[in-house]
Amino acid sequence: MDERTALRLLAADLPAAGDDAAVVDGLVITTDMLHESTDFPTGTTRYTAGWRSVGASLSDVAAMGAPATCAVAVYAAPELDEGELDDFIAGARDVCAEVGASYVGGDLDTHEEFTTATTAIGKTDDPVLRSGAEPGDLLCVTGELGRSAAAVRLFERGDSDRANDLFRFTPRVAAGLVLREYASAMMDSSDGLVRSVHQLAEASDCGFDLDFDALPVHDAVADVATDDDDFHALATQFGEDFELVCTVPEADFAAARDELDVELTVVGRVTDSGEVLADGDPVADRGYTHGGD
Amino acid sequence: MDERTALRLLAADLPAAGDDAAVVDGLVITTDMLHESTDFPTGTTRYTAGWRSVGASLSDVAAMGAPATCAVAVYAAPELDEGELDDFIAGARDVCAEVGASYVGGDLDTHEEFTTATTAIGKTDDPVLRSGAEPGDLLCVTGELGRSAAAVRLFERGDSDRANDLFRFTPRVAAGLVLREYASAMMDSSDGLVRSVHQLAEASDCGFDLDFDALPVHDAVADVATDDDDFHALATQFGEDFELVCTVPEADFAAARDELDVELTVVGRVTDSGEVLADGDPVADRGYTHGGD
Repeated sequence: MDERTALRLLAADLPAAGDDAAVVDGLVITTDMLHESTDFPTGTTRYTAGWRSVGASLSDVAAMGAPATCAVAVYAAPELDEGELDDFIAGARDVCAEVGASYVGGDLDTHEEFTTATTAIGKTDDPVLRSGAEPGDLLCVTGELGRSAAAVRLFERGDSDRANDLFRFTPRVAAGLVLREYASAMMDSSDGLVRSVHQLAEASDCGFDLDFDALPVHDAVADVATDDDDFHALATQFGEDFELVCTVPEADFAAARDELDVELTVVGRVTDSGEVLADGDPVADRGYTHGGD
Repeated sequence: MDERTALRLLAADLPAAGDDAAVVDGLVITTDMLHESTDFPTGTTRYTAGWRSVGASLSDVAAMGAPATCAVAVYAAPELDEGELDDFIAGARDVCAEVGASYVGGDLDTHEEFTTATTAIGKTDDPVLRSGAEPGDLLCVTGELGRSAAAVRLFERGDSDRANDLFRFTPRVAAGLVLREYASAMMDSSDGLVRSVHQLAEASDCGFDLDFDALPVHDAVADVATDDDDFHALATQFGEDFELVCTVPEADFAAARDELDVELTVVGRVTDSGEVLADGDPVADRGYTHGGD
């Protein structure tokens, strides 16, 4: 059973789960675990790890269109080194400050592999779900895709400074607060754009026509890609960019774009076909799946 | 650096941390990580693991004198087995139901060692802290001590049924809601009674006279203890019983005891000496420290 199958079971069983975050009693709550072998390539600083771990949870709050209140983290490592712990906390605190949330501490554990578990809390009585996309709506994405994919390649090449910079993303909390006024459906791109679009199609019972030529791709992707296919996979399948993927009624797009502090790009349109197409061809549901598939 | 030292640094740096749970904006939030090698002896069922992991976080909410709203968990294992995951979720959900909270899902991860990370949320504007004990107050403990210590011995002996039963505790959320009206200071006994009392002494800048003969010890401890010293260590130092340890003004004790659905036992008294004594002799700060010391 891979992670997506297991998550589907979990969602079927728990009505509050199954979106980017659970919503209960006006609270948005989401939790994530990251660990060295799969999430922190050699060269990732503890500061970046703190930022990125907590940021991943804040991104889920953003995807619900909720303000972020606070976050906690568990820091587990083979040895509790004071300098490394301080750096991790600084990163956690700085990413919280970036989105107006408080980092309020957490737990420590000794663990053979460096592992983090983070939880972020937000508040909303009116979350934006994955399930509201309507045929005709525009498919949009914030910011640029491929940052994390490019970073992983740069870590492999030993260019850790640039890779760490790319690995620290701004959780789109502010953008989510604007988009909740306009978006019919929203999620974050943590599993890659293609997989996110498939998930929106499933939750909203709709299809999508994607325009791959319109994708906003970070400059670093061109620097690391080996060829066009690789470029394309890095931008659309690797994921972990933590941008917002949303559907917006065409009449609202200009207002949403103008109100945002980050770029909002149209990358396709919602259809009633039930299929995910790009330039007329079906797009397989490929992306980043923890646990293998 | 052991975990307590690291936690002290964490607390010094983050004003919201340093008690059983952080309190921010009326929310109580706490997070814990448990893993197989240190927390789930061979024989621990996934149902018990779900109950116990989520219960540990709910206990921290209880220790603040707050009602518990909801909990989430990360389930990380080498393989995502559907039956095991279902059992874990059932345990997590049942312990939440036991205290009136909602289990709202979480995240899944593949991880070499079975590992859980749990977060519980409560709400209060008036938490009971560790820092309010006053000389003359009675030192009290809910329920019975030594359940988890006895369980670990029973797991070693292969008596897994009885051990699993002992390992599933009731988080004292209901008791915490009664005690918040009476207690001057409160925490849970997750690190053992002796360590808890030392932590109360440090936070409240006071001393304690303990009466070891008065300790409420679970019957199972006598069944597994090798001698009197062992009995004593299992009851007072092993910890992970998740009972509440609190100080209550003497004039309020009878009312608190009568209102509680669980036994409340007087095990000592707050002094102004700054020392922790039992029957006149100093009691060393020994207990269960993750990370070794």
